[in-house]
Amino acid sequence: MVASADLTSLRGEAVTVVEVGPRDGLQNESAHVSTDDKVAFVDRLSAANLPVIEVSAFVSPKWVPQMADAAEVFARIQRRPGTRYTALVPNLPGLERATSAGVTEVAIFAAVSETFSRKNINQSVDDSLAIYRDVATRALAAGLRVRAYLSTSFGCPYEGHVPVTAVVRRTAQLLDLGAFEVAVSDTIGVAHPAQVVEVLTALRSELPIDRIALHFHDTRGTALANVLAGLLEGIRTFDASAGGLGGCPYAPGAAGNLATDDLLYMLEGVGVRTGVSLAALEEATAFIAARIDHALPSRYAQAAKAARSTP
Amino acid sequence: MVASADLTSLRGEAVTVVEVGPRDGLQNESAHVSTDDKVAFVDRLSAANLPVIEVSAFVSPKWVPQMADAAEVFARIQRRPGTRYTALVPNLPGLERATSAGVTEVAIFAAVSETFSRKNINQSVDDSLAIYRDVATRALAAGLRVRAYLSTSFGCPYEGHVPVTAVVRRTAQLLDLGAFEVAVSDTIGVAHPAQVVEVLTALRSELPIDRIALHFHDTRGTALANVLAGLLEGIRTFDASAGGLGGCPYAPGAAGNLATDDLLYMLEGVGVRTGVSLAALEEATAFIAARIDHALPSRYAQAAKAARSTP
Repeated sequence: MVASADLTSLRGEAVTVVEVGPRDGLQNESAHVSTDDKVAFVDRLSAANLPVIEVSAFVSPKWVPQMADAAEVFARIQRRPGTRYTALVPNLPGLERATSAGVTEVAIFAAVSETFSRKNINQSVDDSLAIYRDVATRALAAGLRVRAYLSTSFGCPYEGHVPVTAVVRRTAQLLDLGAFEVAVSDTIGVAHPAQVVEVLTALRSELPIDRIALHFHDTRGTALANVLAGLLEGIRTFDASAGGLGGCPYAPGAAGNLATDDLLYMLEGVGVRTGVSLAALEEATAFIAARIDHALPSRYAQAAKAARSTP
Repeated sequence: MVASADLTSLRGEAVTVVEVGPRDGLQNESAHVSTDDKVAFVDRLSAANLPVIEVSAFVSPKWVPQMADAAEVFARIQRRPGTRYTALVPNLPGLERATSAGVTEVAIFAAVSETFSRKNINQSVDDSLAIYRDVATRALAAGLRVRAYLSTSFGCPYEGHVPVTAVVRRTAQLLDLGAFEVAVSDTIGVAHPAQVVEVLTALRSELPIDRIALHFHDTRGTALANVLAGLLEGIRTFDASAGGLGGCPYAPGAAGNLATDDLLYMLEGVGVRTGVSLAALEEATAFIAARIDHALPSRYAQAAKAARSTP
C-alpha cells in the first residue's frame, strides 16, 4: 500500500497553520466581544506561537459592525516576532485604514461563484478582481504582502456545483494580480477528500502548488479528512479557527471553520512540525469560548474541557 | 503524487457500514428510550438499507439496564432481507438468551489493555478470552456467526499508550477462537491517521487484512481522517453510530462514536458503494435525536437539520 509510505514521509515536514479565529471566526458570531477581549484573545494566540493570525478586517462598520474596532485592536496587540498579523481589506479605503494601523499583510477575498460574489460583496467576480488588482498594486508598492481567499471553490450555497476549471482560472488571476498565496476555500463545508484531490490535481497542472493554501469548513465533518488529502497532495498551509469559532452562516447551528485545536491534534499525530503549542492554544480557545453564546464545535476542545472538569 | 491514484482507485469499491447506534450508542446514553422507540429506530435503520445493525446486548440488566429489553426488541423488529441483526454477548448465559431470541450473529468484546479489561468487565484479558472461546465454540456449533471488538487498540484511558504488538497478538487470538472479523477499536477517540497506518501495517504483516474492521470514536475530531487512512490501507468495513449517538463515557460532554451520517457523506464523496441511503438514515437520526437529552454530535446531521429549518 502506498498510503503508509506517504503518511510516513510527512513526518518532520513543516506545515503553516493560519489562525483566522479573530476575523473569520468572530465576524460570524452574534455575541458582542469587547475590544479588550479581542486583544487578549489575539495575545493568547500569539502565546501559542501561531505563525499567522488574521486579526481583523478593515471593512465598512455599517456592514460588519463586529470589525469596527480593527485599528484599535491592531494598536493594542502585542506583536510576537515571527508571527504575521494580517487583516482583510475589501478595497482601497480599507487598505488605507489598514496601512495607517500598521498592518503589513492584507488579505483580499474573491469568489468562484458569480451568484455568491454578487450576494456577498455586491460585485461580479470580474469587477471584484479589478478592484483587488488596484488594492494589490498599491499594497505591494507600499511593501505589504497580499494573501487571497477564493470562496466557494468546492461548492456554492446558491449555485451548487462549481466547475474546477473556474477554480483554476480564478486562482491564476489572484496569483497574477500579486497574491503570494491563494487560500482555496470551502465556504459552505461540502468538500470531500476525492474532490480535494480533483481540485488540487487541476491546480497543480497549471500553477505552483506551494502557493496554494486550503481553507476548510467542518460543516459536514470532513474537514480533517480533507486536510489529510491535501497533505498527501503536497499542501503545506492550512487555515483554521480556534475552537471552531464562527459557525456556518449558511446553516445556523451547524459547524463552520475547521477548529485549529482539531487540526493541531491531527498534525501532531502525523508528525509534521507546526511550531504551535496545542496546550497554549487551548487557553486561547477556553478564553474566547467563555465570551461566546454557544458551545464551540471543536471536538478536541470539548474533550480537553471534559478532561479538565473530571475530578 | 500517489494519493490521487489511491483515492481514485477507491471509486466503485464496496464498503460495509456496521451501524452500532442501537447498542453501543444507546447503551451510553443517559436518556431512557422505550422499547417501542428502540424498535422504531432499528426499523428506520433497516429502511436505510444498512447491511449490519447491532441491535442490543444480552448482558446483565443489573449492570446495563438500558439493554434489559434485548429479547423484546429482537422479537419486534422487522428483519430486512440482506441486513444482519447482531447482539453483544459477554458470556454463555448471554449467548443462550441471544439464541433464544433468534439472534444469528453475536459480538464479543475483549480489550488490549489489562487495566481497561479489569475495570470494564472485571476480568483479565486472558480470562475474558477463555470465556469468549467457549462462547464462540458454542455459537459456531449452533450455526451463528461471531464478530469481535478489540477495545483500547489505539490508547487506554488508564494506561495511555498501548503497544502495537499487543494489538496484533490479541487480534490473532480473537480470529483464532472463531471470530470472522475483529473490529479494532479506538475506545477513547485518540487515534490519528499515522497511528492507523502503523497499526494496520503491523496487523497486515501477520493477519489477513480483510478480516479487520475499524471502529473509531470522534472524540478529538480525527475519526473521518482515520477512516480515510484505513480505506487507503485496504480496510473495507467501518463501524459507526447514527447521529454519533453514544457520547464518550471517558469525557462526558465530548463526542463518542463516529457518526454514520458523517461517514456516509464522506464515503459517497469518495465514490465507494455502501448501498445505504443517507437521506433515509437522516430520518432514523432525526427520530432518535428527538428522544435523547442532548444534541447529537454528527456534523452532517446538524447541517441537514439546519437546512430543514431554514425557510
